[in-house]
Amino acid sequence: MTAHRFDVVGLDADDTLWHSEDSFVRVEDRFVELVTPFTPAGVDAAAALRAMERTHVPISGYGVKAFTLAMVKAAVAVTEARVPAAVVDQLVDAGMAMLTETVRLLPDVPAVLADLSRDHRLVLITKGDLVHQTRKVETSGIDHHFEQIEVVLEKDPATYERILRQVGVEAARFCMVGNSVRSDILPVLALGGHAVHIPYPLLWEHEHVDHDEELDELASIKELPAALRTNV
Amino acid sequence: MTAHRFDVVGLDADDTLWHSEDSFVRVEDRFVELVTPFTPAGVDAAAALRAMERTHVPISGYGVKAFTLAMVKAAVAVTEARVPAAVVDQLVDAGMAMLTETVRLLPDVPAVLADLSRDHRLVLITKGDLVHQTRKVETSGIDHHFEQIEVVLEKDPATYERILRQVGVEAARFCMVGNSVRSDILPVLALGGHAVHIPYPLLWEHEHVDHDEELDELASIKELPAALRTNV
Repeated sequence: MTAHRFDVVGLDADDTLWHSEDSFVRVEDRFVELVTPFTPAGVDAAAALRAMERTHVPISGYGVKAFTLAMVKAAVAVTEARVPAAVVDQLVDAGMAMLTETVRLLPDVPAVLADLSRDHRLVLITKGDLVHQTRKVETSGIDHHFEQIEVVLEKDPATYERILRQVGVEAARFCMVGNSVRSDILPVLALGGHAVHIPYPLLWEHEHVDHDEELDELASIKELPAALRTNV
Repeated sequence: MTAHRFDVVGLDADDTLWHSEDSFVRVEDRFVELVTPFTPAGVDAAAALRAMERTHVPISGYGVKAFTLAMVKAAVAVTEARVPAAVVDQLVDAGMAMLTETVRLLPDVPAVLADLSRDHRLVLITKGDLVHQTRKVETSGIDHHFEQIEVVLEKDPATYERILRQVGVEAARFCMVGNSVRSDILPVLALGGHAVHIPYPLLWEHEHVDHDEELDELASIKELPAALRTNV
């Protein structure tokens, strides 16, 4: 084995390089606060929103715009159509504000990327909304570290296979890093690639998956360069 | 010159291969119908919606989800927050229905693509929403003709340059085909590539551009294979 087992390191973005899920949780809380005065007693507005999101994902996909449309539908549903237009307006504003929110990098990210980019080609692979993810990448101040930015619909083995082919690396020389076992780890392992799991304190329930595999796991991204040097 | 001047032909999708703008117009009409009973006399609801769309594009981008969020905001605005929740619900439903609408190919498209693909490598280049455009491509029945599918944020020279590099073709051997002079024609000409304009009866105002260039124009896609054979 060489000192650099991996030619290419793929990095997830949301909740791996910058905070994301906490904004969704904050806006969900705001949703509950705004609709509760118009909601019959005993109705769980938060649960209704999550159910609406689940229904919408196959149609409208991931990301803030899909989430905002789900909020509007859920607001009408839980209030039995009593939600005032002014509240609907505030919900859409809360969603639109997420789209322009300043990127908040996780600790140590710029230094880690500078370190990694000395030994590896870096590729950013993120799911979600094209316009939102592109804006975050472009305003993050870290996009110059990446040889390629991939905003993808679904992180499944076929998607990773296409990216590896485009980037020109075999699976055995590729390591993916991310917070979602479902999206960042298992599909890459299935291809014969390597993957490092760095959990984030919050995980969207849609990303939850049960699995038996023993995973390479780090407590923070700060440990990543040393871990890759010792082949994880 | 050889018989095949172009190695790669790029094709736009919305209003070039399948109908798109007519659905937006139909849902806009429905918007006006739904909000008018709650709108003060003299307010032009359609103009207000188009203004809201323009404001949203830089933040939420192109596509049905951005359009649907603009409808909700415009409905609240033009009715001075008197629009009932049930109407908001119908507006979101109308947008969500667009996301799953069956693809309606323009006349002759399958035969033309089969013909073109004998002499050229084909790439589909479309702007808009990742989940919606991917669904349309996958259910169109014509996706097997394309070597690559690119859903992009903006069709500017930088985007085309990246795609040409990835596909491995020089600009002079590339021809782009589409209905939008702004998005499909001018940026490709700026790179030294070739482009063929096939107008669609409807054009979203955002795509309108004034220009002095004389363009290669065809009345329908049916004429494209012969035009490419005679070098347009």
